[in-house]
Amino acid sequence: MAKSSNITAAKGFRAGGLTCGIKASGKPDLVIIASDTPCSAAGVFTTNKMPGAPVVVSKKHVANGTAQAIVCNSGCSNVCTGQQGIADALTMCLQTGQHLGIDPSDVLVCSTGVIGHMLPIDKIEAGIEQLATKLKRGPQADAATAKAILTTDLVPKTAHVYFKIGSKTVHIGGIAKGSGMIAPNMATMLSFITTDIAIEPKLLKQVLKRVADISYNRISVDEDTSTSDSVMILANGQAGNRIINKPGKNLDLFEEALTQLCKDLAYQIVKDGEGATRVYRAQVSGAASLKDANLIGKTIANSPLVKTAVHGCDPNWGRLVMAVGRSGAKVKPEKLDIAIGGTLLCKGGQPTQLTKAQLAKVEKHMKTKEVILSVNLNLGKGESEWLGCDLSREYITINADYTT
Amino acid sequence: MAKSSNITAAKGFRAGGLTCGIKASGKPDLVIIASDTPCSAAGVFTTNKMPGAPVVVSKKHVANGTAQAIVCNSGCSNVCTGQQGIADALTMCLQTGQHLGIDPSDVLVCSTGVIGHMLPIDKIEAGIEQLATKLKRGPQADAATAKAILTTDLVPKTAHVYFKIGSKTVHIGGIAKGSGMIAPNMATMLSFITTDIAIEPKLLKQVLKRVADISYNRISVDEDTSTSDSVMILANGQAGNRIINKPGKNLDLFEEALTQLCKDLAYQIVKDGEGATRVYRAQVSGAASLKDANLIGKTIANSPLVKTAVHGCDPNWGRLVMAVGRSGAKVKPEKLDIAIGGTLLCKGGQPTQLTKAQLAKVEKHMKTKEVILSVNLNLGKGESEWLGCDLSREYITINADYTT
Repeated sequence: MAKSSNITAAKGFRAGGLTCGIKASGKPDLVIIASDTPCSAAGVFTTNKMPGAPVVVSKKHVANGTAQAIVCNSGCSNVCTGQQGIADALTMCLQTGQHLGIDPSDVLVCSTGVIGHMLPIDKIEAGIEQLATKLKRGPQADAATAKAILTTDLVPKTAHVYFKIGSKTVHIGGIAKGSGMIAPNMATMLSFITTDIAIEPKLLKQVLKRVADISYNRISVDEDTSTSDSVMILANGQAGNRIINKPGKNLDLFEEALTQLCKDLAYQIVKDGEGATRVYRAQVSGAASLKDANLIGKTIANSPLVKTAVHGCDPNWGRLVMAVGRSGAKVKPEKLDIAIGGTLLCKGGQPTQLTKAQLAKVEKHMKTKEVILSVNLNLGKGESEWLGCDLSREYITINADYTT
Repeated sequence: MAKSSNITAAKGFRAGGLTCGIKASGKPDLVIIASDTPCSAAGVFTTNKMPGAPVVVSKKHVANGTAQAIVCNSGCSNVCTGQQGIADALTMCLQTGQHLGIDPSDVLVCSTGVIGHMLPIDKIEAGIEQLATKLKRGPQADAATAKAILTTDLVPKTAHVYFKIGSKTVHIGGIAKGSGMIAPNMATMLSFITTDIAIEPKLLKQVLKRVADISYNRISVDEDTSTSDSVMILANGQAGNRIINKPGKNLDLFEEALTQLCKDLAYQIVKDGEGATRVYRAQVSGAASLKDANLIGKTIANSPLVKTAVHGCDPNWGRLVMAVGRSGAKVKPEKLDIAIGGTLLCKGGQPTQLTKAQLAKVEKHMKTKEVILSVNLNLGKGESEWLGCDLSREYITINADYTT
């Protein structure tokens, strides 16, 4: 199955994107994704306490575990827009629902872009009317959809996995956007996932939460958590499997596949981080607890000094020491081991003596596109892997000049 | 009293700095500050759980509330150096003590620079021997001292204040270093303070802690907390005031003066932040509690997106909304006010309508050297002010290329 099929890879989904005129650049800025039939639905939303109006509305609409369509605009986030913002988000649901013949409360809504501006709702309404009747399946529709949710992203992020439940093939397709304001706990990140699996809403929600925690919530571009982040999944049951209504092998298969898809999309987000030139994996092991492992992984993924060291191809493991120490996790200095690309640089809290060949190996590894930074606390069984990207001059350029 | 007098402004203190050969650049790298007579002493140290050997040793030496000298090297931090590191830090105290005729346990020690390298202790010992007999008072000695504690700093940071207790004039002089790995709770920051006030150690410790909390602990260059941070104060009593042994007017006078001095030095650190071109004040008011005000102030001072907006002179108040929302503090979106340079941009969680003249005023303010970012939660009486600096391409250049 080709990568070209993603958001409409699952049976019974159609999608599309177009330019409705929100962005000054004239780039595509409106998307609708819809299932032909009602879906189990779930969402994971930003933890930011100033959530955008679409987050408020979508949380309500998905609360009953069902939905049938997603409408999303880029170029304006509809955050800090008061009652008018809520009204605008509801209008987007209403219009989409009317044109698709779906109850507005079964439409989920997202907006991403600049904060503190009112949506140009007339343009969006006109766009929805135009788009709703032209939703399609296949590579072209997929590409248009994946493109129209982007903001400062350089490339669309798409993924597709499939697996069998008995004789039935289940497809999961997903798209994502996000390249700045990206930090653990849902940064300016949107991801829409469609699947034809038959699954009860309650289980779908649990699985999505667990998967988001180990994929989208373990990445960092710049530690800034956005007001708009949303991951949404629609599952329409058209694969024809017996509906999953309890834990067990079939749920595990689904969770495994969804994890693969979301980790793939999360990786793509970090790789396309604003100004990023390389990705690094912060591999934490031997922590006193999972919580501690996550504290350390998050700190390494967020640290500007680790990010700049990676950017400079500098095996400056002292910055990992600093990050471990400031993370808040339990540490015994005399037990800390640190390796870069598999070469041990610090053993028991002290520098190792490297041969020239070993040093050359480390230096070569630092120049690769995916740098592996490993810390072992040697205290317990807590382990975790986080993804970060380097911090470059280009990040500054992008964010110093991003228009208000 | 001229600014040229700082670390030896108080009676009975001598100091000096020289090059002992730690830095490849050949820049000054060793400092001794000493009182002619025993002092009440106090210190505030990094919260990083991988503290350098000098932090471990100095904490012990200051625990009894007395000390008489400080020895400090730059260019190598003596962090992650195991038992040998502890031995080297003790050697620095021993050598300094021997040459000055002071018990080694009355010598405090600091090291700052790259992590994970052993100190070139022979060079340092030779340097101490040479320096200890040449300590002086006055502008030249002050300048040499302030310079030799620097690493990536562009300029020395010095301050001096004085006030009267009855007929006695009390002097407080201070120096500081730090321009990267600077974040709340003692970042790669050293500050040494000398005063001739007579004060009991217990009170001195309390005052220093309180003052550090509202000066050095409210600044951020890059949120990375170093393994070496130390603020140390020596008070030798030579001003001749009646010893301060309880709270009251005289202690208040001292605390006020010390606060002024430390805030001055903290400001100098942020202003000289790696790659910084301007400073910003994050003024938080109306928070539900002081704790919440500090959470918000810290998040704004740390946020890469706020930092890059300030760098780009961009009044992108949406990033303040994001920072407030992700800080963890209690927020009611419909009550949030945001102003830049005194101009209200967001009122009750919604954008205000600015006139062209008002917008021009905001834009002009963003181009000044000190930008004022104010958020009012309108929830309670919690208020706090934090200092941050912008994030520039130069920060990347400095930190991507900093040698390991």
